[in-house]
Amino acid sequence: MNAEIIAVGSELLTPDRVDTNSLYLTQQLNTLGVEVRRKSVVGDDRELLAEEVKFALQRSEILVLSGGLGPTEDDVTRDAVADALGRALVFSPALLDALTGRFAKLNRKMAENNRRQTYLVEGAEALPNARGTAPGQWLNANGRAVMLLPGPPHEMKAIFEEDCLPRLTRMLPPQVIRTRFLRVAGMGESDLDQLISPIYKPYTNPVTTILAGAGDIQVHLRARGGTTAEAEALLEEIAPRIEERLGDRIYSRDGSSLETVVGHMLRKRGATVSVAESCTGGLLGQRITNVAGSSAYFVGGFLAYTDRLKVNLLGVEAGILALHTSVSEEAAKAMAAGARARTGSTYAISVTGEAGPESATGVPVGTVIVGMAGPEGDPHAERYTLFGDRNGIRARAAQWALDYFRRRI
Amino acid sequence: MNAEIIAVGSELLTPDRVDTNSLYLTQQLNTLGVEVRRKSVVGDDRELLAEEVKFALQRSEILVLSGGLGPTEDDVTRDAVADALGRALVFSPALLDALTGRFAKLNRKMAENNRRQTYLVEGAEALPNARGTAPGQWLNANGRAVMLLPGPPHEMKAIFEEDCLPRLTRMLPPQVIRTRFLRVAGMGESDLDQLISPIYKPYTNPVTTILAGAGDIQVHLRARGGTTAEAEALLEEIAPRIEERLGDRIYSRDGSSLETVVGHMLRKRGATVSVAESCTGGLLGQRITNVAGSSAYFVGGFLAYTDRLKVNLLGVEAGILALHTSVSEEAAKAMAAGARARTGSTYAISVTGEAGPESATGVPVGTVIVGMAGPEGDPHAERYTLFGDRNGIRARAAQWALDYFRRRI
Repeated sequence: MNAEIIAVGSELLTPDRVDTNSLYLTQQLNTLGVEVRRKSVVGDDRELLAEEVKFALQRSEILVLSGGLGPTEDDVTRDAVADALGRALVFSPALLDALTGRFAKLNRKMAENNRRQTYLVEGAEALPNARGTAPGQWLNANGRAVMLLPGPPHEMKAIFEEDCLPRLTRMLPPQVIRTRFLRVAGMGESDLDQLISPIYKPYTNPVTTILAGAGDIQVHLRARGGTTAEAEALLEEIAPRIEERLGDRIYSRDGSSLETVVGHMLRKRGATVSVAESCTGGLLGQRITNVAGSSAYFVGGFLAYTDRLKVNLLGVEAGILALHTSVSEEAAKAMAAGARARTGSTYAISVTGEAGPESATGVPVGTVIVGMAGPEGDPHAERYTLFGDRNGIRARAAQWALDYFRRRI
Repeated sequence: MNAEIIAVGSELLTPDRVDTNSLYLTQQLNTLGVEVRRKSVVGDDRELLAEEVKFALQRSEILVLSGGLGPTEDDVTRDAVADALGRALVFSPALLDALTGRFAKLNRKMAENNRRQTYLVEGAEALPNARGTAPGQWLNANGRAVMLLPGPPHEMKAIFEEDCLPRLTRMLPPQVIRTRFLRVAGMGESDLDQLISPIYKPYTNPVTTILAGAGDIQVHLRARGGTTAEAEALLEEIAPRIEERLGDRIYSRDGSSLETVVGHMLRKRGATVSVAESCTGGLLGQRITNVAGSSAYFVGGFLAYTDRLKVNLLGVEAGILALHTSVSEEAAKAMAAGARARTGSTYAISVTGEAGPESATGVPVGTVIVGMAGPEGDPHAERYTLFGDRNGIRARAAQWALDYFRRRI
């Protein structure tokens, strides 16, 4: 079966915005064995969008639209799909109840225009949205499946996973897909590819995909077969060799983020952690506290952006900073030791570095030192040279710090 | 006039590739006063691409295709455009001479399949490509301009600038675009829309677009006129009324981020700031230090995630936490006062709240208190009810904290 994806929104037709929802949707659809034949971006124009929907449905069995389900006059996806299919929009009392309840819970009055979000294309099922006001919609039209999803990526993804995936699976011919998903930290994408491409390149099934973020690489292996055993056997031909080659660079095999993995390790040990951040300015703490329930092991820490605060808040000796600068192993070790002593945490992680654009210490931009203190042995630290612009270096610095900690506790 | 852009290539329909040529093309076309109404990505499928070209030319005066001009069987753009227009492909001896010369200069033999690159759609002009083997093509079809450009960005851009831009300029009526760009914090999208839609709705020129992130809304106004004065006059009809209605909710008129605006205000005063974060776990500090040069005014701060650290690091009285919980105005004020005293900064911002998924204090999830301390008057704080999942609430909490601070210093 073939799919088409339409992203709706005039903002996606400006020179600085790109539709990324379709990347996620493509990945999901491919996993089901569905090819995306075409994708498009259409502005907030009801007539144009209706034409687009008709055009897509002439050729493809599956159509996913994202965006244009908001409460304003600009949000035309509901109307356009109804127009394209020659159906009406139908008011849903259940959706109104849900939306009114949502606002009541927040002690806010629902704006009149939110009512637009309580209409369904005739024959559509509402797909509840726990994260926003725009419900999704699923409908069948002459044997074709049409999905209307909200534009914000986290809302779109949650609805797709919870409500569209099961429906699509029922609809599609049975095919077994077995996947392996590795997350890898502490190395660059091309280094990783050089290491593992000799293993996966000769194979078209499984399909191997490598996705890279800032110091965070995902390796997806996807094997398709008529039975589970067949798919699993295909996977087994290459997955163990890739895993062996990557070794302890692999931090997760179930999709968990690095901060989640670190959190699990701390919980298991009944240990706590604190941070002492300089160049990352809070990013490391933010990463750790992204995890729900992180208060079980994260106590807090220090943003010691200036040298004076490194001395006053963390007890780093001024002499260390004068002799080695704040971007040094000595400073990172003292920062970690200070954070651990002053918060009483089991472990402490420190980061200091030059994120740029200019260097304040004379140390080259991209130099980052990660330090760690704990109950066993002296504090220790490691120096890295990271690349990227200011925010790229900061993001990598937080990632390297978490990974340094993971590999050493 | 309107344009459509088609990116050709099956690789652009995979989960990890995005068409970026269209961003450059959009920017260039917008500068000429041309709107991009729609863009699409089509795989290397001659029939599908021919349909796509026909579909686009039904409605738009300008069509730009990029990609699919290479020498292999997969490269179907030339054939598909010819099919769509009912024209033939015509061999060009001049193109063959140029291509043969190019290979000779590189001391390489031309491969047989490069001959495919010496065919033009009947009636097209060849656009020379100094950087690659694929020449571009320009053609007029029933008053429409169609451009075939190679996919590699540097080849595409060079040909567009050298050969397409002059032709388009001759073709288009002189037109000027004037824009206004407002960034707004501290309110939801639908509240904002309700406030300003009565002003902008009656107008199609300027075009008003509203984009919303987590507590961060962008309002774009774009007016077109024959002269600068005319475009400016159109803009003046509604922009001042929108600006007046939004008042000090507008934090920037030049696209600057909220943290950049706050940074400017601190620099102008020669003041410094510190933070005391609980539920945001570092996100507020990270936002502030996103700005290059923020070390001029950001000293650092505290991540006081546990009650114990609020007491030990920030000097919040344990009695306040026992009586009011950590999610209270009293706690937020004491946190800000403590951070200011202990870092010596001019100002301090504090955030405490319940980001969920569960409430640790009994205060409802989404409750966030922002506090501030400074040289004038007592510390003060304000309570907000924010919505979203854990990370949505945290993102909004940091945004609301920055905006609270901006409006009060």
